[in-house]
Amino acid sequence: MEEIKLPGRAPIQFYFDFSSPYSYIASEWIEAVAARHGRRVQWHAVLLGFLFQSTGLKPLVDYPVKGEYAVRDMQRSAAFAGVPFTKPEPFPISTVNAARVFWWLQSQDPQRAAGFARAALRAYFTRNVNLGDPAALKQLCTDSGLDGDAAEAAWGDPQWKAKLKTANDDAQAAGVFGAPYFIVDGEPFWGNDRQQHMEAWLQSGPPKGLN
Amino acid sequence: MEEIKLPGRAPIQFYFDFSSPYSYIASEWIEAVAARHGRRVQWHAVLLGFLFQSTGLKPLVDYPVKGEYAVRDMQRSAAFAGVPFTKPEPFPISTVNAARVFWWLQSQDPQRAAGFARAALRAYFTRNVNLGDPAALKQLCTDSGLDGDAAEAAWGDPQWKAKLKTANDDAQAAGVFGAPYFIVDGEPFWGNDRQQHMEAWLQSGPPKGLN
Repeated sequence: MEEIKLPGRAPIQFYFDFSSPYSYIASEWIEAVAARHGRRVQWHAVLLGFLFQSTGLKPLVDYPVKGEYAVRDMQRSAAFAGVPFTKPEPFPISTVNAARVFWWLQSQDPQRAAGFARAALRAYFTRNVNLGDPAALKQLCTDSGLDGDAAEAAWGDPQWKAKLKTANDDAQAAGVFGAPYFIVDGEPFWGNDRQQHMEAWLQSGPPKGLN
Repeated sequence: MEEIKLPGRAPIQFYFDFSSPYSYIASEWIEAVAARHGRRVQWHAVLLGFLFQSTGLKPLVDYPVKGEYAVRDMQRSAAFAGVPFTKPEPFPISTVNAARVFWWLQSQDPQRAAGFARAALRAYFTRNVNLGDPAALKQLCTDSGLDGDAAEAAWGDPQWKAKLKTANDDAQAAGVFGAPYFIVDGEPFWGNDRQQHMEAWLQSGPPKGLN
Protein backbone atom coordinates (compact mmCIF):
# COMPACT_ATOMS: atom_id res chain seq x y z
CA MET A 1 0.00 0.00 0.00
CA GLU A 2 1.34 3.35 -0.98
CA GLU A 3 2.01 5.85 1.76
CA ILE A 4 -0.48 8.68 1.79
CA LYS A 5 1.32 11.98 1.41
CA LEU A 6 0.06 14.75 3.63
CA PRO A 7 0.85 18.01 1.87
CA GLY A 8 1.42 21.12 3.97
CA ARG A 9 2.54 19.21 7.04
CA ALA A 10 6.07 20.57 7.10
CA PRO A 11 7.29 21.69 10.51
CA ILE A 12 6.83 25.26 11.66
CA GLN A 13 10.20 27.00 11.44
CA PHE A 14 10.73 28.99 14.65
CA TYR A 15 13.66 31.40 14.89
CA PHE A 16 14.50 32.89 18.28
CA ASP A 17 17.24 34.72 20.15
CA PHE A 18 17.87 33.93 23.82
CA SER A 19 17.81 37.66 24.64
CA SER A 20 14.51 38.42 22.90
CA PRO A 21 11.55 38.89 25.27
CA TYR A 22 8.99 38.29 22.54
CA SER A 23 10.86 35.10 21.57
CA TYR A 24 10.52 33.97 25.19
CA ILE A 25 6.77 34.59 25.18
CA ALA A 26 6.42 32.74 21.86
CA SER A 27 8.53 29.85 23.16
CA GLU A 28 5.81 29.25 25.75
CA TRP A 29 3.02 28.81 23.17
CA ILE A 30 4.64 27.62 19.93
CA GLU A 31 4.53 23.89 20.74
CA ALA A 32 0.86 24.06 21.72
CA VAL A 33 -0.02 25.91 18.51
CA ALA A 34 1.88 23.35 16.44
CA ALA A 35 0.22 20.44 18.26
CA ARG A 36 -3.26 21.90 17.66
CA HIS A 37 -2.56 21.80 13.94
CA GLY A 38 -0.69 18.50 13.70
CA ARG A 39 2.68 20.12 13.13
CA ARG A 40 6.10 19.84 14.63
CA VAL A 41 8.35 22.80 15.45
CA GLN A 42 11.86 23.20 14.15
CA TRP A 43 13.69 25.49 16.58
CA HIS A 44 16.50 27.77 15.35
CA ALA A 45 18.67 29.68 17.81
CA VAL A 46 19.97 32.77 16.00
CA LEU A 47 21.73 36.00 16.89
CA LEU A 48 19.70 39.16 16.42
CA GLY A 49 22.88 41.21 16.44
CA PHE A 50 23.90 39.44 13.25
CA LEU A 51 20.46 39.58 11.62
CA PHE A 52 20.11 43.31 12.32
CA GLN A 53 22.88 43.82 9.77
CA SER A 54 20.38 43.08 6.98
CA THR A 55 18.13 45.95 7.92
CA GLY A 56 20.32 48.42 9.76
CA LEU A 57 18.13 48.03 12.83
CA LYS A 58 19.29 47.80 16.44
CA PRO A 59 17.86 46.40 19.68
CA LEU A 60 14.37 47.74 20.44
CA VAL A 61 15.35 49.29 23.75
CA ASP A 62 18.11 51.30 22.08
CA TYR A 63 15.48 53.49 20.42
CA PRO A 64 14.41 56.44 22.55
CA VAL A 65 10.66 56.66 23.30
CA LYS A 66 9.91 53.45 21.38
CA GLY A 67 12.24 51.58 23.72
CA GLU A 68 10.31 52.73 26.79
CA TYR A 69 7.04 51.73 25.18
CA ALA A 70 8.55 48.36 24.27
CA VAL A 71 9.36 47.56 27.90
CA ARG A 72 5.76 48.24 28.86
CA ASP A 73 4.50 46.27 25.87
CA MET A 74 6.63 43.18 26.57
CA GLN A 75 5.41 43.09 30.18
CA ARG A 76 1.81 43.56 29.06
CA SER A 77 2.13 41.02 26.23
CA ALA A 78 3.49 38.45 28.67
CA ALA A 79 0.62 39.14 31.08
CA PHE A 80 -1.98 38.81 28.32
CA ALA A 81 -0.32 35.52 27.27
CA GLY A 82 -0.45 34.31 30.87
CA VAL A 83 3.33 33.95 31.00
CA PRO A 84 5.41 35.12 33.99
CA PHE A 85 7.88 37.85 33.05
CA THR A 86 10.40 40.01 34.87
CA LYS A 87 12.46 42.33 32.73
CA PRO A 88 16.04 41.15 33.31
CA GLU A 89 19.02 43.36 34.05
CA PRO A 90 21.39 43.51 32.20
CA PHE A 91 19.34 43.51 29.00
CA PRO A 92 20.06 42.67 26.24
CA ILE A 93 22.91 40.19 26.80
CA SER A 94 25.30 38.18 24.64
CA THR A 95 23.61 34.93 23.69
CA VAL A 96 26.34 33.41 21.58
CA ASN A 97 27.33 30.71 24.10
CA ALA A 98 23.73 29.71 24.85
CA ALA A 99 23.05 29.47 21.11
CA ARG A 100 26.09 27.22 20.60
CA VAL A 101 24.90 24.94 23.42
CA PHE A 102 21.54 24.80 21.66
CA TRP A 103 23.09 23.72 18.34
CA TRP A 104 25.33 21.19 20.09
CA LEU A 105 22.25 19.61 21.69
CA GLN A 106 20.27 19.92 18.49
CA SER A 107 22.80 17.72 16.66
CA GLN A 108 22.08 14.96 19.19
CA ASP A 109 18.41 15.39 20.02
CA PRO A 110 16.22 18.23 18.70
CA GLN A 111 13.66 17.70 21.49
CA ARG A 112 16.30 18.11 24.14
CA ALA A 113 17.61 21.24 22.42
CA ALA A 114 14.11 22.73 22.41
CA GLY A 115 13.72 21.83 26.08
CA PHE A 116 17.00 23.57 26.88
CA ALA A 117 15.89 26.62 24.88
CA ARG A 118 12.63 26.87 26.83
CA ALA A 119 14.45 26.45 30.16
CA ALA A 120 17.09 29.05 29.30
CA LEU A 121 14.56 31.61 28.07
CA ARG A 122 12.52 31.11 31.25
CA ALA A 123 15.61 31.40 33.41
CA TYR A 124 16.59 34.71 31.87
CA PHE A 125 13.15 36.26 31.67
CA THR A 126 11.74 35.10 35.00
CA ARG A 127 14.76 34.59 37.28
CA ASN A 128 17.27 37.02 35.81
CA VAL A 129 19.81 34.26 35.07
CA ASN A 130 22.37 36.04 32.87
CA LEU A 131 22.97 33.62 30.00
CA GLY A 132 25.84 35.83 28.85
CA ASP A 133 27.80 35.02 32.01
CA PRO A 134 29.72 31.74 31.53
CA ALA A 135 29.40 30.66 35.17
CA ALA A 136 25.65 31.31 35.24
CA LEU A 137 25.17 29.55 31.90
CA LYS A 138 27.15 26.53 33.06
CA GLN A 139 25.11 26.33 36.26
CA LEU A 140 21.90 26.55 34.24
CA CYS A 141 23.10 23.71 32.01
CA THR A 142 23.82 21.57 35.08
CA ASP A 143 20.43 22.47 36.60
CA SER A 144 18.82 21.46 33.29
CA GLY A 145 20.33 17.97 33.55
CA LEU A 146 23.19 18.53 31.12
CA ASP A 147 26.86 17.83 31.74
CA GLY A 148 28.11 21.34 32.59
CA ASP A 149 31.69 20.66 31.55
CA ALA A 150 30.59 19.19 28.22
CA ALA A 151 28.33 22.21 27.62
CA GLU A 152 31.21 24.59 28.36
CA ALA A 153 33.45 22.63 26.02
CA ALA A 154 30.76 22.79 23.34
CA TRP A 155 30.43 26.57 23.39
CA GLY A 156 34.21 26.86 22.97
CA ASP A 157 34.35 24.25 20.21
CA PRO A 158 34.97 25.52 16.64
CA GLN A 159 32.42 22.97 15.40
CA TRP A 160 29.53 24.62 17.24
CA LYS A 161 30.84 28.09 16.56
CA ALA A 162 30.72 27.22 12.86
CA LYS A 163 27.26 25.64 13.20
CA LEU A 164 25.85 28.79 14.77
CA LYS A 165 27.39 30.89 12.02
CA THR A 166 25.75 28.65 9.42
CA ALA A 167 22.43 28.87 11.26
CA ASN A 168 22.62 32.68 11.17
CA ASP A 169 23.52 32.68 7.48
CA ASP A 170 20.67 30.28 6.71
CA ALA A 171 18.20 32.42 8.67
CA GLN A 172 19.35 35.55 6.86
CA ALA A 173 19.00 33.76 3.52
CA ALA A 174 15.45 32.78 4.52
CA GLY A 175 14.61 36.46 5.09
CA VAL A 176 14.67 36.39 8.88
CA PHE A 177 15.37 39.90 10.19
CA GLY A 178 13.96 39.76 13.73
CA ALA A 179 12.71 37.37 16.39
CA PRO A 180 10.55 35.55 17.00
CA TYR A 181 10.16 34.73 13.33
CA PHE A 182 8.09 31.85 11.99
CA ILE A 183 7.77 30.26 8.58
CA VAL A 184 4.75 28.09 7.79
CA ASP A 185 4.85 26.43 4.37
CA GLY A 186 6.87 29.34 3.03
CA GLU A 187 4.72 32.05 4.62
CA PRO A 188 6.67 34.30 7.03
CA PHE A 189 5.28 35.64 10.31
CA TRP A 190 7.29 38.04 12.43
CA GLY A 191 6.58 38.67 16.08
CA ASN A 192 4.85 37.18 19.09
CA ASP A 193 1.86 39.29 18.01
CA ARG A 194 1.38 37.26 14.82
CA GLN A 195 0.24 34.16 16.73
CA GLN A 196 -3.36 34.53 15.63
CA HIS A 197 -2.58 35.15 11.98
CA MET A 198 -0.32 32.10 12.00
CA GLU A 199 -2.95 29.95 13.65
CA ALA A 200 -5.60 31.08 11.18
CA TRP A 201 -3.17 30.28 8.37
CA LEU A 202 -2.45 26.82 9.82
CA GLN A 203 -6.18 26.23 10.09
CA SER A 204 -7.41 27.56 6.75
CA GLY A 205 -4.52 28.85 4.67
CA PRO A 206 -4.48 32.38 3.22
CA PRO A 207 -7.31 34.70 4.27
CA LYS A 208 -9.90 35.65 1.68
CA GLY A 209 -8.76 38.56 -0.44
CA LEU A 210 -5.02 37.92 -0.14
CA ASN A 211 -3.21 37.47 -3.43
CA MET B 1 -29.35 65.46 42.09
CA GLU B 2 -25.64 65.19 41.67
CA GLU B 3 -24.31 63.93 38.37
CA ILE B 4 -22.91 60.42 38.58
CA LYS B 5 -19.31 60.40 37.44
CA LEU B 6 -18.34 57.50 35.25
CA PRO B 7 -14.63 56.98 35.72
CA GLY B 8 -12.63 55.56 32.82
CA ARG B 9 -15.02 56.74 30.14
CA ALA B 10 -12.62 59.15 28.52
CA PRO B 11 -12.45 58.94 24.72
CA ILE B 12 -9.97 56.62 23.05
CA GLN B 13 -7.18 58.78 21.64
CA PHE B 14 -6.43 57.60 18.09
CA TYR B 15 -3.38 58.95 16.27
CA PHE B 16 -3.01 58.23 12.57
CA ASP B 17 -1.11 59.32 9.47
CA PHE B 18 -2.87 59.40 6.10
CA SER B 19 0.01 57.45 4.53
CA SER B 20 0.08 54.66 7.14
CA PRO B 21 -1.43 51.35 5.96
CA TYR B 22 -1.89 50.05 9.48
CA SER B 23 -3.62 53.33 10.40
CA TYR B 24 -6.00 52.73 7.50
CA ILE B 25 -6.83 49.23 8.73
CA ALA B 26 -7.35 50.53 12.26
CA SER B 27 -9.54 53.37 10.98
CA GLU B 28 -11.96 50.71 9.76
CA TRP B 29 -12.44 49.10 13.20
CA ILE B 30 -11.70 51.77 15.81
CA GLU B 31 -15.24 53.21 15.97
CA ALA B 32 -16.78 49.74 16.38
CA VAL B 33 -14.35 48.88 19.18
CA ALA B 34 -15.12 52.16 20.93
CA ALA B 35 -18.87 51.64 20.55
CA ARG B 36 -18.68 48.13 22.03
CA HIS B 37 -17.15 49.62 25.17
CA GLY B 38 -19.22 52.79 25.46
CA ARG B 39 -16.41 55.08 24.40
CA ARG B 40 -15.96 57.81 21.87
CA VAL B 41 -12.90 58.19 19.63
CA GLN B 42 -10.82 61.32 19.44
CA TRP B 43 -9.05 61.29 16.07
CA HIS B 44 -5.65 62.95 15.65
CA ALA B 45 -4.08 63.38 12.21
CA VAL B 46 -0.31 63.51 12.69
CA LEU B 47 2.79 63.34 10.52
CA LEU B 48 4.94 60.25 10.98
CA GLY B 49 7.85 62.05 9.35
CA PHE B 50 7.83 64.45 12.28
CA LEU B 51 7.29 61.80 14.95
CA PHE B 52 10.13 59.64 13.61
CA GLN B 53 12.48 62.37 14.81
CA SER B 54 11.93 61.19 18.41
CA THR B 55 13.27 57.73 17.71
CA GLY B 56 15.52 58.10 14.69
CA LEU B 57 13.29 55.68 12.78
CA LYS B 58 12.22 55.97 9.15
CA PRO B 59 9.32 54.63 7.05
CA LEU B 60 8.94 50.84 7.32
CA VAL B 61 9.44 50.22 3.62
CA ASP B 62 12.77 52.07 3.69
CA TYR B 63 14.31 49.16 5.64
CA PRO B 64 15.69 46.40 3.42
CA VAL B 65 14.24 42.93 4.04
CA LYS B 66 11.90 44.20 6.77
CA GLY B 67 10.28 46.52 4.24
CA GLU B 68 9.49 43.64 1.89
CA TYR B 69 8.04 41.63 4.75
CA ALA B 70 6.00 44.69 5.80
CA VAL B 71 4.30 44.93 2.41
CA ARG B 72 3.23 41.30 2.68
CA ASP B 73 2.17 41.79 6.28
CA MET B 74 0.03 44.87 5.57
CA GLN B 75 -1.79 43.05 2.78
CA ARG B 76 -2.29 40.00 4.97
CA SER B 77 -3.35 42.07 7.99
CA ALA B 78 -5.96 43.85 5.88
CA ALA B 79 -7.25 40.53 4.57
CA PHE B 80 -7.48 39.07 8.08
CA ALA B 81 -9.34 42.22 9.18
CA GLY B 82 -11.71 41.86 6.24
CA VAL B 83 -10.70 45.23 4.85
CA PRO B 84 -10.01 45.80 1.13
CA PHE B 85 -6.44 46.90 0.47
CA THR B 86 -4.32 47.67 -2.57
CA LYS B 87 -0.81 48.88 -1.92
CA PRO B 88 -0.73 52.35 -3.45
CA GLU B 89 1.98 53.72 -5.66
CA PRO B 90 3.64 56.11 -4.89
CA PHE B 91 4.02 55.10 -1.26
CA PRO B 92 4.56 56.72 1.16
CA ILE B 93 3.26 60.17 0.20
CA SER B 94 3.16 63.63 1.74
CA THR B 95 0.10 63.88 3.95
CA VAL B 96 0.53 67.41 5.21
CA ASN B 97 -2.32 68.90 3.18
CA ALA B 98 -4.76 66.10 4.03
CA ALA B 99 -3.88 66.49 7.70
CA ARG B 100 -4.53 70.23 7.57
CA VAL B 101 -7.93 69.61 5.97
CA PHE B 102 -8.63 67.20 8.81
CA TRP B 103 -7.82 69.78 11.49
CA TRP B 104 -9.80 72.47 9.67
CA LEU B 105 -12.85 70.18 9.69
CA GLN B 106 -12.14 69.05 13.23
CA SER B 107 -12.46 72.65 14.45
CA GLN B 108 -16.01 72.72 13.06
CA ASP B 109 -17.29 69.18 13.54
CA PRO B 110 -15.15 66.30 14.86
CA GLN B 111 -17.53 63.70 13.39
CA ARG B 112 -17.17 65.19 9.96
CA ALA B 113 -13.39 65.27 10.33
CA ALA B 114 -13.37 61.59 11.26
CA GLY B 115 -15.60 60.82 8.29
CA PHE B 116 -13.21 62.67 5.99
CA ALA B 117 -10.27 60.77 7.49
CA ARG B 118 -11.93 57.42 6.85
CA ALA B 119 -12.83 58.41 3.29
CA ALA B 120 -9.34 59.68 2.52
CA LEU B 121 -7.60 56.61 3.97
CA ARG B 122 -9.91 54.36 1.95
CA ALA B 123 -9.32 56.39 -1.20
CA TYR B 124 -5.55 56.10 -0.89
CA PHE B 125 -5.40 52.45 0.18
CA THR B 126 -8.10 51.02 -2.07
CA ARG B 127 -8.26 53.35 -5.10
CA ASN B 128 -4.74 54.72 -5.23
CA VAL B 129 -5.92 58.32 -4.84
CA ASN B 130 -2.69 60.22 -4.17
CA LEU B 131 -3.53 62.49 -1.24
CA GLY B 132 -0.18 64.21 -1.74
CA ASP B 133 -1.28 65.54 -5.12
CA PRO B 134 -3.23 68.81 -4.63
CA ALA B 135 -5.58 68.19 -7.57
CA ALA B 136 -6.41 64.65 -6.42
CA LEU B 137 -6.91 65.80 -2.84
CA LYS B 138 -9.20 68.63 -3.91
CA GLN B 139 -11.25 66.23 -6.03
CA LEU B 140 -11.51 63.83 -3.10
CA CYS B 141 -12.72 66.68 -0.87
CA THR B 142 -15.40 67.56 -3.43
CA ASP B 143 -16.39 63.90 -3.79
CA SER B 144 -16.66 63.75 -0.01
CA GLY B 145 -19.20 66.57 0.02
CA LEU B 146 -16.83 69.33 1.07
CA ASP B 147 -16.31 72.66 -0.66
CA GLY B 148 -13.15 71.94 -2.66
CA ASP B 149 -12.07 75.58 -2.85
CA ALA B 150 -12.54 76.03 0.89
CA ALA B 151 -10.53 72.85 1.55
CA GLU B 152 -7.72 74.08 -0.69
CA ALA B 153 -7.76 77.43 1.06
CA ALA B 154 -7.64 75.64 4.42
CA TRP B 155 -4.53 73.63 3.64
CA GLY B 156 -2.74 76.84 2.59
CA ASP B 157 -3.96 78.79 5.63
CA PRO B 158 -1.36 79.57 8.34
CA GLN B 159 -4.03 78.82 10.96
CA TRP B 160 -4.32 75.14 9.97
CA LYS B 161 -0.60 74.84 9.33
CA ALA B 162 -0.09 75.98 12.91
CA LYS B 163 -2.82 73.68 14.21
CA LEU B 164 -1.16 70.64 12.59
CA LYS B 165 2.17 71.66 14.05
CA THR B 166 0.58 71.86 17.50
CA ALA B 167 -1.08 68.47 16.98
CA ASN B 168 2.30 66.92 16.14
CA ASP B 169 3.94 68.54 19.14
CA ASP B 170 1.12 67.35 21.40
CA ALA B 171 1.37 63.82 20.05
CA GLN B 172 5.12 63.78 20.56
CA ALA B 173 4.66 65.07 24.11
CA ALA B 174 2.16 62.24 24.70
CA GLY B 175 4.83 59.71 23.67
CA VAL B 176 3.43 58.91 20.23
CA PHE B 177 6.24 57.62 17.99
CA GLY B 178 4.33 55.63 15.35
CA ALA B 179 0.87 55.07 13.91
CA PRO B 180 -1.71 53.91 14.56
CA TYR B 181 -1.23 54.78 18.20
CA PHE B 182 -3.98 54.62 20.79
CA ILE B 183 -4.22 55.85 24.36
CA VAL B 184 -6.90 54.43 26.66
CA ASP B 185 -7.06 56.05 30.09
CA GLY B 186 -3.34 56.76 29.93
CA GLU B 187 -2.36 53.30 28.64
CA PRO B 188 -0.57 53.41 25.25
CA PHE B 189 -1.13 50.86 22.48
CA TRP B 190 0.91 51.00 19.29
CA GLY B 191 -0.11 49.26 16.10
CA ASN B 192 -3.10 47.78 14.35
CA ASP B 193 -1.98 44.49 15.92
CA ARG B 194 -2.76 45.72 19.43
CA GLN B 195 -6.53 45.73 18.82
CA GLN B 196 -7.12 42.72 21.04
CA HIS B 197 -4.99 43.94 23.92
CA MET B 198 -6.79 47.27 23.76
CA GLU B 199 -10.20 45.61 23.72
CA ALA B 200 -9.28 43.40 26.65
CA TRP B 201 -8.10 46.49 28.50
CA LEU B 202 -11.32 48.36 27.70
CA GLN B 203 -13.29 45.36 28.95
CA SER B 204 -11.39 44.46 32.12
CA GLY B 205 -8.46 46.82 32.66
CA PRO B 206 -4.90 45.56 33.15
CA PRO B 207 -4.31 41.83 32.70
CA LYS B 208 -3.50 39.77 35.78
CA GLY B 209 0.17 39.91 36.64
CA LEU B 210 0.88 43.35 35.14
CA ASN B 211 2.30 45.85 37.60
